[in-house]
Amino acid sequence: MSEKLIGAAVIGQSGGPTSVINASAYGVIRTALDSECITNVYGMAHGIKGMLADQLYDMGQEDAEELKLLLNTPSSELGSCRYKIADPDKDDTDYKRILEIFKKYNIRYFFYNGGNDSMDTCDKVSRYMAKSGWDCRVMGVPKTIDNDLYGTDHCPGFASAAKYIATSVCEVYKDARVYDTGMITVIEIMGRHAGWLTAAASLASTVGCGPDLIYVPEVDFDMDKFLKDVTDIYNKNGKCIVAVSEGIHYADGTFVSEAKASATDGFGHAQLGGLAAHLANVVKEKTGAKVRGIELSLLQRCGAHLASQTDIDESFLAGKTAVEAAVNGETGKMVGFKRVMTDGKYSCEMILLPLTSVANYEKKVPLEWITPDHNGITSDFADYALPLIAGEPDRKLENGLPRFARLKKVLAK
Amino acid sequence: MSEKLIGAAVIGQSGGPTSVINASAYGVIRTALDSECITNVYGMAHGIKGMLADQLYDMGQEDAEELKLLLNTPSSELGSCRYKIADPDKDDTDYKRILEIFKKYNIRYFFYNGGNDSMDTCDKVSRYMAKSGWDCRVMGVPKTIDNDLYGTDHCPGFASAAKYIATSVCEVYKDARVYDTGMITVIEIMGRHAGWLTAAASLASTVGCGPDLIYVPEVDFDMDKFLKDVTDIYNKNGKCIVAVSEGIHYADGTFVSEAKASATDGFGHAQLGGLAAHLANVVKEKTGAKVRGIELSLLQRCGAHLASQTDIDESFLAGKTAVEAAVNGETGKMVGFKRVMTDGKYSCEMILLPLTSVANYEKKVPLEWITPDHNGITSDFADYALPLIAGEPDRKLENGLPRFARLKKVLAK
Repeated sequence: MSEKLIGAAVIGQSGGPTSVINASAYGVIRTALDSECITNVYGMAHGIKGMLADQLYDMGQEDAEELKLLLNTPSSELGSCRYKIADPDKDDTDYKRILEIFKKYNIRYFFYNGGNDSMDTCDKVSRYMAKSGWDCRVMGVPKTIDNDLYGTDHCPGFASAAKYIATSVCEVYKDARVYDTGMITVIEIMGRHAGWLTAAASLASTVGCGPDLIYVPEVDFDMDKFLKDVTDIYNKNGKCIVAVSEGIHYADGTFVSEAKASATDGFGHAQLGGLAAHLANVVKEKTGAKVRGIELSLLQRCGAHLASQTDIDESFLAGKTAVEAAVNGETGKMVGFKRVMTDGKYSCEMILLPLTSVANYEKKVPLEWITPDHNGITSDFADYALPLIAGEPDRKLENGLPRFARLKKVLAK
Repeated sequence: MSEKLIGAAVIGQSGGPTSVINASAYGVIRTALDSECITNVYGMAHGIKGMLADQLYDMGQEDAEELKLLLNTPSSELGSCRYKIADPDKDDTDYKRILEIFKKYNIRYFFYNGGNDSMDTCDKVSRYMAKSGWDCRVMGVPKTIDNDLYGTDHCPGFASAAKYIATSVCEVYKDARVYDTGMITVIEIMGRHAGWLTAAASLASTVGCGPDLIYVPEVDFDMDKFLKDVTDIYNKNGKCIVAVSEGIHYADGTFVSEAKASATDGFGHAQLGGLAAHLANVVKEKTGAKVRGIELSLLQRCGAHLASQTDIDESFLAGKTAVEAAVNGETGKMVGFKRVMTDGKYSCEMILLPLTSVANYEKKVPLEWITPDHNGITSDFADYALPLIAGEPDRKLENGLPRFARLKKVLAK
């Protein structure tokens, strides 16, 4: 154990929200409030932007029970941002300001809760502080429904979104079979570059309610082949359910959602709806069938009522581990997850990864988990993901509706 | 009690599915299987179409535990149809066929589980059988997420959809506030003629996460006023959440979703997306703000994981009551719900309504529950709806996903 570092801690949240990012924040805040080395705990209003604007909430003034409700409160409760911080070697304006704020509040612990870009911010702050000689410890706490962070078995937030998606697919499967007339359903799922979330639709197959076809952005999309795939299944079964990533793209890299007039569909007008509406239209024109496009939209990333308790527990632990490791002298690391299988039983160990090895690298679905026809996902994915979505959250309710945390958010002076 | 009528019973499901229509079917099937007067219990494959095609499932061959899972299985498990049966005075072909099937299986009890049109079918079958002299008892078991059936305080299926909608609005509310930049969100909710489901968005306000504006089809929609409403709130708060019924219409009766090129929006191209995408586009053009359209789509009617236990219990009871009443001599009736408030505590009594008084009449949201500005819902609605959405379902899970009923569906000979 290294020398004790006494001072304040600050936590910020960044990037797109998830159902459990606040569970990680709670892990940081609760552990920091309880730590002997940490004198004050601050929350950045809207991530690093709040740091730059000297807008820090004093977390010590919050009611303990309300803070605990963060475990089941979706979205980023402290507020998020999508602020790309400069390279300190080129422009150190922001870093000077951060150091100023660090000195003002005697901040010695910096925790940043986010995805790829956030780990990059974290890494840059860490390196600048080391260079400037301000003794502080910087830790990244991961989150991303996209599951694309390098070096960790999976990412906090992914499993809850996966559970929402798989459950919704099960329910749509039932609904889409209700009439004895034909029906094709296209479900659009988030994931611009990685297909993890769309692959989660395949989990519904383990309870007999899976989609017929799945298209992910790890491989090129071919509209003609897609139409043949759908038509073949529709002609055989009278029903067809398709799951597609928002990020599917043609061989030339053009996103299908952006290709307003492809050679196949022949439409020339503006796309008002998203990819699901677009594909539904193309399929309808080709088959004449009744087609419905469904976009799971924001709900897949904020549907905390369907969060995985495993995900909540691990997300909390990621935050807690970050604080404990920092207090013990670690810095410049991101908390990661290591899968441990003992007699076929899943457990998860917290590990620490150098921030430099994580930032700005995207992990994709292994190509061998995609079927040779490029229209499905193998059972390897279910082996990987099923342990992660286990467990139902014990949510606090009011009027039969979610009772989220209500923080006072008192600005620190 | 009237004379005992011994014979078989048949149940059919019709119209759009709900999260709890199978709970009603289970109420009928379980009670009928346990009744001394009922010799066999059949399920129509796809409603009255299965009856006409002599496709009846023998429900006695199902496993009792699987049948019980119908309580938490969404959609119409027996299959549904949208078949409009003729007026028997004009064309009695279908009725002759139905009587033939009744005689073949000695069917003496006919239960039909559906909405407005289904009650009309039920009524016609009831009157034809009475005229033809075939001694049988015909009962309607209501269902509709639209909540628009006459004579009943509320309809089985409504509360579960309402709970799904209100919970989703709470979660979207959190998500839409995550950045410190402006954001307008338009949520499209089902309801072609009645605004009950859209009004359910207002329930989220009781836990502090409600929409800013709500538009229902009970009153005419004015695009200019809508844009002013949204802009005023957006300019004041930087955020605005709007809930709209799919059925909102202009004063001339044109659905907003069908008006491809209104004077206000000026677009001339085909609508690929639905109403939410359309309004999002109009608002974006007007305000320049970041706007997101969300269509809750099928999920609101099949999201059984968020069903209301009160709704499940009452739906089951509606089916059970129909069988018990029929065995006791009732016919030509629909089961309805009567609200009883005792010391402020809600309970629900089963009542019987003449089918003739129910069929083909739509009940709408009372105009006095709509705010004078026509852009909100008063707290009267919450008083009405909150008791209905109470209670969380105890669902059977497998792999962390819903384990729905798996019926054998053995065709009767």
